[in-house]
Amino acid sequence: MKCFVTGGAGFIGSNLVDYLVKGNKVTAYDNLSLGRKEFISHHLKNKDFSFIEADLLDFEKLKQSMKSHDVVFHMAANSDISNNSVTDIDLKNGTIATYNVLESMRLNNIKHMIFASSSAVYGEAKVKPTLENYGPLFPISFYGASKLAAEGLISSFCHNFSMKAWIFRFANIVGKNGTHGVIVDFIKKLKENDKKLLILGNGKQAKPYLHVNDCVEGMIHGWKNSNDKINCFNLGCKDVTTVNEIANMIVDAIGLKNVKFEYTGEECGWIGDVPQVNLDISRMSKIGWKAKLSSNQAVRKSVKELLKK
Amino acid sequence: MKCFVTGGAGFIGSNLVDYLVKGNKVTAYDNLSLGRKEFISHHLKNKDFSFIEADLLDFEKLKQSMKSHDVVFHMAANSDISNNSVTDIDLKNGTIATYNVLESMRLNNIKHMIFASSSAVYGEAKVKPTLENYGPLFPISFYGASKLAAEGLISSFCHNFSMKAWIFRFANIVGKNGTHGVIVDFIKKLKENDKKLLILGNGKQAKPYLHVNDCVEGMIHGWKNSNDKINCFNLGCKDVTTVNEIANMIVDAIGLKNVKFEYTGEECGWIGDVPQVNLDISRMSKIGWKAKLSSNQAVRKSVKELLKK
Repeated sequence: MKCFVTGGAGFIGSNLVDYLVKGNKVTAYDNLSLGRKEFISHHLKNKDFSFIEADLLDFEKLKQSMKSHDVVFHMAANSDISNNSVTDIDLKNGTIATYNVLESMRLNNIKHMIFASSSAVYGEAKVKPTLENYGPLFPISFYGASKLAAEGLISSFCHNFSMKAWIFRFANIVGKNGTHGVIVDFIKKLKENDKKLLILGNGKQAKPYLHVNDCVEGMIHGWKNSNDKINCFNLGCKDVTTVNEIANMIVDAIGLKNVKFEYTGEECGWIGDVPQVNLDISRMSKIGWKAKLSSNQAVRKSVKELLKK
Repeated sequence: MKCFVTGGAGFIGSNLVDYLVKGNKVTAYDNLSLGRKEFISHHLKNKDFSFIEADLLDFEKLKQSMKSHDVVFHMAANSDISNNSVTDIDLKNGTIATYNVLESMRLNNIKHMIFASSSAVYGEAKVKPTLENYGPLFPISFYGASKLAAEGLISSFCHNFSMKAWIFRFANIVGKNGTHGVIVDFIKKLKENDKKLLILGNGKQAKPYLHVNDCVEGMIHGWKNSNDKINCFNLGCKDVTTVNEIANMIVDAIGLKNVKFEYTGEECGWIGDVPQVNLDISRMSKIGWKAKLSSNQAVRKSVKELLKK
């Protein structure tokens, strides 16, 4: 099978490429704005792998590059979620980019898309654990808004042009090649100053953390074990980890002592951050999949992986 | 109060302007691609009314024009919903246009938006009558996808910049100044040929039709009687009208006899058409509003109004 991976040199994309190259031809398409060539450099000599450094907003290049592929894994997005100083990053790199991917698929007659959506589409859900059929969907970040917009575009393309999609609403994904998020942030801060750690929010934010290996395997399992026009799954684990727990795990892993935690104090880490997330993952369970690692295990493993760098 | 109405020369926008000019200063902003100057020409000599012929995609013009207004009624959209031959009309004139409106509001420090959304966000809902908290939201038309994208953008702008929004998910709106839709279509066809009428679909499509006067009054009522960050309401009536009933009402109103109805035969009129719509309108009822006209009454009145032209 010939797989096209957008954001293929990014965090989740590069881990997905590692998985897909075993048995498939893979093209990674990435503008390297957030992705890194080092994440996929070990495949560059593989004749079944090719890397295209280009932007999803370059429609002609995208359309041309996608030719003759069987399936598109659309992983590219702006992963710097907490930035709200520029309001159109996600509109461009999320919504419009997704439109370009879908239109290129249509013109290349590619019928299957696997999409990296996010639990951010739920906004501050009033029902937790939150099911895939939760409504209303009022995201509170531009990132969440762009994921919701992308889901709508995917749904309408599927309906109009007989395409099929597998939409995975991710928990917080952590692990090897992570470039953003709380673990990366805390490690960076502690490397600069190992006496104190500034924690955004009150530290009580609690979310499910899924290891990227589980994330990749979950997507593949969902794709192979469901076959509706639109297949939508929460992809996470049952438990949650607090920001305070993460801070302590990192401090322990580095072997620091007497680090003073300071807090900005709000309930959420930043405007647009959903402080309490808890996903109902029974739909994935029903098709026979669950994460190998719990949320705490995933965080612990990721801390180790990220400290190795 | 100084009101800014996007799509102010369009179908719903022009009816809204007729309402708002009684007691407010009103600016209608419209590129006249679907709107018509004749719909607002009777206000042009009113010193409290101004018309700006410009595009929402012209961001600088929009930002400049919006200055010093108190509230934005965002009615502009591509109302030619059934066209799926070009796939980015709604992305541009729905999603990106809405982003421009919100960003202009932010830069002009305007905090209140009233938004014309659509029951098309529900796609083919499995629960009917459909409540505002229905999920998942998988629209089947590009129009529906753009309304969903717009709702997400509105929600994230409201959260990030302390804005408030009143989102109205419209039933099928009919009446004076209508430019699209089944009534306009049937009248046009019968004027060309009064012996036969080609009906898209099987004629059994059934939807709630709301008269534009009720639509305008409903929006104003909802805006004045709810005050959350995001206020989202279905705006429709309790009953539905079938396409066959509409065809018969028009034939009767014109005074034709022995018109042969021919059908394309599918369940839906066109790809992306939701054949059976039924909205739960209890949320508007709870704040003391209901439509004056039933669905059938709204259609009958609209037929008369549109035949007058």
